[in-house]
Amino acid sequence: MRNIRLTIGYNGSRYSGFQKQPGKETIQSLLEKAVSAVTGEQTTVMGSGRTDAGVHARGQVVHFHTGTRIPAGRWCAALNSLLPSDIVVWEAEEVELTFHARKSAKRKTYCYTINANRFMDPLRQHIELHHPGPLQVDAMQAALSQFAGEHDFSSFCSIRAKGESRVRTIYEARLEHVLVPGMERAAGQGVVRLFITGNGFLYHMVRIIAGTVIAVGEGKLSPEDIPRIFAARNRSHAGPTAKPHGLTLWSVEYSVNG
Amino acid sequence: MRNIRLTIGYNGSRYSGFQKQPGKETIQSLLEKAVSAVTGEQTTVMGSGRTDAGVHARGQVVHFHTGTRIPAGRWCAALNSLLPSDIVVWEAEEVELTFHARKSAKRKTYCYTINANRFMDPLRQHIELHHPGPLQVDAMQAALSQFAGEHDFSSFCSIRAKGESRVRTIYEARLEHVLVPGMERAAGQGVVRLFITGNGFLYHMVRIIAGTVIAVGEGKLSPEDIPRIFAARNRSHAGPTAKPHGLTLWSVEYSVNG
Repeated sequence: MRNIRLTIGYNGSRYSGFQKQPGKETIQSLLEKAVSAVTGEQTTVMGSGRTDAGVHARGQVVHFHTGTRIPAGRWCAALNSLLPSDIVVWEAEEVELTFHARKSAKRKTYCYTINANRFMDPLRQHIELHHPGPLQVDAMQAALSQFAGEHDFSSFCSIRAKGESRVRTIYEARLEHVLVPGMERAAGQGVVRLFITGNGFLYHMVRIIAGTVIAVGEGKLSPEDIPRIFAARNRSHAGPTAKPHGLTLWSVEYSVNG
Repeated sequence: MRNIRLTIGYNGSRYSGFQKQPGKETIQSLLEKAVSAVTGEQTTVMGSGRTDAGVHARGQVVHFHTGTRIPAGRWCAALNSLLPSDIVVWEAEEVELTFHARKSAKRKTYCYTINANRFMDPLRQHIELHHPGPLQVDAMQAALSQFAGEHDFSSFCSIRAKGESRVRTIYEARLEHVLVPGMERAAGQGVVRLFITGNGFLYHMVRIIAGTVIAVGEGKLSPEDIPRIFAARNRSHAGPTAKPHGLTLWSVEYSVNG
């Protein structure tokens, strides 16, 4: 038995999320269908984590076991020829049988993109949230930086999150403000990207952090509210859950042996 | 009578180009329909130039005349509410009656984007040409820089270009090589963007320049071939016409009074 690790990207617009569900088209179900078609085996493809319906990925990692001897170098082309063009396998390698895409993951990075120009960008409307009003980007930065470190994220996860510990560590929470010349007409416009790297993420956690940071940008919350929201340990204190299409799973990192 | 100038962007994927044609959905026909719905007038919308089917725009400029008194500040929202979401009006202003989107244009900039990674980017496949083999980017740069200046572009336009002068001036021809960490696996990969600014462009001119520069990147032509191709004044000497979906009309510039 061999263990194959894939790095994949997808445009989540058309899909009901990563995880397979009866009667729905998902990334996992299409990957399993493609791998099974190549191997002739019934295969389970495990991801580093789920992504919600509409969420994208540039660096999702999955693994699967196979009894075939197909060399690692062949997998990309073989699977890409069977997958729709909005799902791409970028890299394939054979890894130790102990490698597990979810359990072995050390750090994950998500990117949430907000277009604060008055009108949306027709070339990027599928991968960024359009926020037609200006945003106070400095306040967003001040709010976002407070997410770094170890925290109880009970206020920043869906009430449907599983009953495990809500403590997670955010290694980096970084804001990029991209100004495209000619696209911005006023202060507070441009494209804002939130990059959040952590050891794990609860259900809807990045989208609730993004929604809270956007509420700060709108002046509905202030950066000083963040400690209070953490302390409340109650979802209702945080901002709304930002829409899925602005979110991209950017990368998943493993230890050197992973 | 008033003259309104619009700056618009569009994703050209679904359209048969800018120019109206009977029985086809085009940017111009949709703009005219939207303007006429707002004004109740039969309106002609003139663009700075055509774009081919599948070509995009970030900064296309158009103008139209109207007898209505609708203030310039109202046009964007009014038209965007009537246009499909892949066509966006970014800016509207009232200009002198002498302003003409095509005749008054001083400089136009196009961007041609080539993704030279082994597999395409599922989030950008509609706006970049995927070139799965590596490219010699330095050679492409050396070829592209030779397009700057005043030249007879007979070798770099479609044989269907109109019989006018084939002399045009390129003010700037610039290459950007964008490396996205984790996306490139080998030399010659990454995303290459060609920015070309000129006083005017012949039919297919940017796409043929792009196709020629790509042929140089593949080693099928060398930078030293460019003077010979110019001198031939014959379309058959240049490289192929690059596909439309990698091309974006980036901006159109007018004189200060324009």
